[in-house]
Amino acid sequence: MSKGKMAAQCAHAAILCFQKAQCSANKETQEILELWLASGQPKIVLRVGGHNDLITLQEEAEKLGILAVIVYDAGHTQLDAGTATVLGIGPDKNSKINKLVSHLNLL
Amino acid sequence: MSKGKMAAQCAHAAILCFQKAQCSANKETQEILELWLASGQPKIVLRVGGHNDLITLQEEAEKLGILAVIVYDAGHTQLDAGTATVLGIGPDKNSKINKLVSHLNLL
Repeated sequence: MSKGKMAAQCAHAAILCFQKAQCSANKETQEILELWLASGQPKIVLRVGGHNDLITLQEEAEKLGILAVIVYDAGHTQLDAGTATVLGIGPDKNSKINKLVSHLNLL
Repeated sequence: MSKGKMAAQCAHAAILCFQKAQCSANKETQEILELWLASGQPKIVLRVGGHNDLITLQEEAEKLGILAVIVYDAGHTQLDAGTATVLGIGPDKNSKINKLVSHLNLL
């Protein structure tokens, strides 16, 4: 993927997570979303080894009760349709997210 | 900026534009937002020459009635606080956005 394509996929993930948090009926999720917005919507982009890591991390996030959404590309440009490109995680408490991703390096 | 930092800044821009569209009282903006969501939230990341281009493009977008939000970095990591990093444009009709950015290359 080009840098621009990567950035667009990360932007998709951010909006999908944001929408999921907005639509959640969970009061704690609403509070976390408000805090996240009030603190400047921090985002960090990390690198994984490949497709299987995205699936595994999503499963682990769900076990921990953390919002997690995989972006599947529509296949209009550089990738095959249905390719998983990014896993969006959160917003959630730093301590919970760190448990999940502290072993990963920055992109 | 690293690739990850660039991606995070683009994700900031996407959410800022999305929030601005959600909060707009303009009926046409609401319709455009619905169409954009229904069509898979397409996003394209383009390169500009520098800071002044972001400011000029934002002014031109506003003249055309297109949503446009500049991301200013908080300065916690790789950049000085207050650095303009990305201009988010839209969502809007392709024809309007193309008038504004068709001279730019993909990132």
